[in-house]
Amino acid sequence: VNDHVPAGGAAPADRSETPGLFEQEIREQPACLERLVRQGRAGTLEVAERLRAFGPCFVVIVARGSSDNVARYAQYLFGIRHGLTVALATPSVQTRYGASPSLGGALVVGVSQSGRSPDLLAVIEEGRRQGALTLAVTNDSQSALAQAAELRLPLLAGEERAVAATKTYANQLLAFAMLSAALQGDEEAWGHLGALPEAVAAAIAENTSPALPEYLQETPRLAVLGRGYNFSTAFEVALKVKETSYVMAEPYSFADFLHGPVAMVDPSLPLVVIAPSGRTDEDADAAVELAHRLQAPLAVVSDRAGLLAEADCPLPLPKAVPEWLSPIVAVVPGQLLGLALAESRGLDPDQPRGLSKVTRTL
Amino acid sequence: VNDHVPAGGAAPADRSETPGLFEQEIREQPACLERLVRQGRAGTLEVAERLRAFGPCFVVIVARGSSDNVARYAQYLFGIRHGLTVALATPSVQTRYGASPSLGGALVVGVSQSGRSPDLLAVIEEGRRQGALTLAVTNDSQSALAQAAELRLPLLAGEERAVAATKTYANQLLAFAMLSAALQGDEEAWGHLGALPEAVAAAIAENTSPALPEYLQETPRLAVLGRGYNFSTAFEVALKVKETSYVMAEPYSFADFLHGPVAMVDPSLPLVVIAPSGRTDEDADAAVELAHRLQAPLAVVSDRAGLLAEADCPLPLPKAVPEWLSPIVAVVPGQLLGLALAESRGLDPDQPRGLSKVTRTL
Repeated sequence: VNDHVPAGGAAPADRSETPGLFEQEIREQPACLERLVRQGRAGTLEVAERLRAFGPCFVVIVARGSSDNVARYAQYLFGIRHGLTVALATPSVQTRYGASPSLGGALVVGVSQSGRSPDLLAVIEEGRRQGALTLAVTNDSQSALAQAAELRLPLLAGEERAVAATKTYANQLLAFAMLSAALQGDEEAWGHLGALPEAVAAAIAENTSPALPEYLQETPRLAVLGRGYNFSTAFEVALKVKETSYVMAEPYSFADFLHGPVAMVDPSLPLVVIAPSGRTDEDADAAVELAHRLQAPLAVVSDRAGLLAEADCPLPLPKAVPEWLSPIVAVVPGQLLGLALAESRGLDPDQPRGLSKVTRTL
Repeated sequence: VNDHVPAGGAAPADRSETPGLFEQEIREQPACLERLVRQGRAGTLEVAERLRAFGPCFVVIVARGSSDNVARYAQYLFGIRHGLTVALATPSVQTRYGASPSLGGALVVGVSQSGRSPDLLAVIEEGRRQGALTLAVTNDSQSALAQAAELRLPLLAGEERAVAATKTYANQLLAFAMLSAALQGDEEAWGHLGALPEAVAAAIAENTSPALPEYLQETPRLAVLGRGYNFSTAFEVALKVKETSYVMAEPYSFADFLHGPVAMVDPSLPLVVIAPSGRTDEDADAAVELAHRLQAPLAVVSDRAGLLAEADCPLPLPKAVPEWLSPIVAVVPGQLLGLALAESRGLDPDQPRGLSKVTRTL
């Protein structure tokens, strides 16, 4: 069931021990992506066909944790490339208040590594009862969630053993990106999808054991900023950092940050700016300028050399990934940052306090 | 233009100076609520009539900052009491990527104190172009947002001068609650709405200058937990704390917190549990149990004496507010907590760094 470490993955620098599960699975991502893009295309085309025939008037996505960050990506993907309004479900409306918001005419998607959280299942079952088109994006095709939905996009990521998700996150993003390419019937897009494993391998190689400035080794908190497609990346990088190093990393869109939280910025609050090239370049530039003006320590994830040069902690991305696919690559330095922060604090990222692989909430 | 401090508001304890704008406006809330529930009813009934005739298939709400936290309340209110799915808009889809997600058949609501942020305006204008029903909830009926929308719910809160919103937040929540009562034609609900000013005055009186345990005076971070109707309250309390004291307060739903962030909990992370009586009682109980087990310092906002007794920092709520209206009262101790945190750190909550009253984002 386990995946092999891809040949392209760089060896850990200056460490003699066998890498832990979290690091192993970060390094498995190129192979996992490659497998899904190759083996998942036919199934994705079938799902796209059903979706086109149904013609949803809006989309509801239900998810928790890392999968919810994938839902944030899908919100922009469906909005920008397919003109669909996407709502992120609020399961407690159903599970705590016993109400059933109208889902008729909607596409209802459940995203979950395990497919085993009862609150997600409840929303999918309600969608199906109301005649919505239901889709499960999960790594376990035998799970209750996968069985409850009419359509399935399997992740083909192999068993994920680390508690903090990495390779299933990458493949969930890819599953949505493939669905988008299939909906548009866009052969050029499939070419870009095929180039992702190499880009992710390059991002791993470039960001293995990043040199951590002292402020990052010691801070109890930091803010992660992103926007548009990479709003999702800001959330996922923040979550990885929290799960592995217990640093309170809070994610924001560049715009929301200016409506209040910016008041916190001073030399005691490191900022991590997620800035792959694209339509939000000027937002990222403004955030970097803000960090300099208020003397906040700054880490930057970007393929733009000029922007990286502005940072105390530059986390480089390979060039030539279209913006709509950039979250699959841009999360990698954040995963490795989480690993480095955990190690610098003497923590084992495979033993996060109070977490187990499957979380069942109602 | 300014409102008078209501007679019911308690005088600040042990302070000889005139209260600042932030504190003044916290104390104006009962009078502002009372004015809106009395003067706003007729207009709200008209909006409800138009909404019933239109029969939206889903709702999109666009907002930033505190107003976005009101949108989170409306998400539960419309979902639980009216069976409507609510999407929170992602304005950058339009303003940065030039895309126009389908809004036909939807109710599109813009929520903004000033009505002057261009990104919100863009979404309302696009909704109107597509034939959606558009509604502006704003404190300035002459603003561009109010003029762009087909329908308006004015807040009647008087000019808000403090940068950190309080009385407009309360009246925004109330405007949605009144719309809900009008949609249901529920006379008992109007009775509950009429009782809110007294409940808010009681919450102010009970939580003025709360005794702050040392851990709250010194912490650089804390987590605020809530769920369901009071997911909004967790977000707004966190935002007030950030804006006034620069403490990084991060909000979570009880359920989302268990899917990762719980790993951070230890004696260095204070938890603030928002727990008015209701359908999420068992979630709140579990959070309190978790705080005890992991020795996290604990503040509790609740009307339940048993739960308050568990907290290092009890922040009491008056009884007898129905759960769907509880966010209007439950935010008050959080506003006063923000004020107390700012004062204990020698900060002026009327001069938050880097903020001005109107934030224009695109």
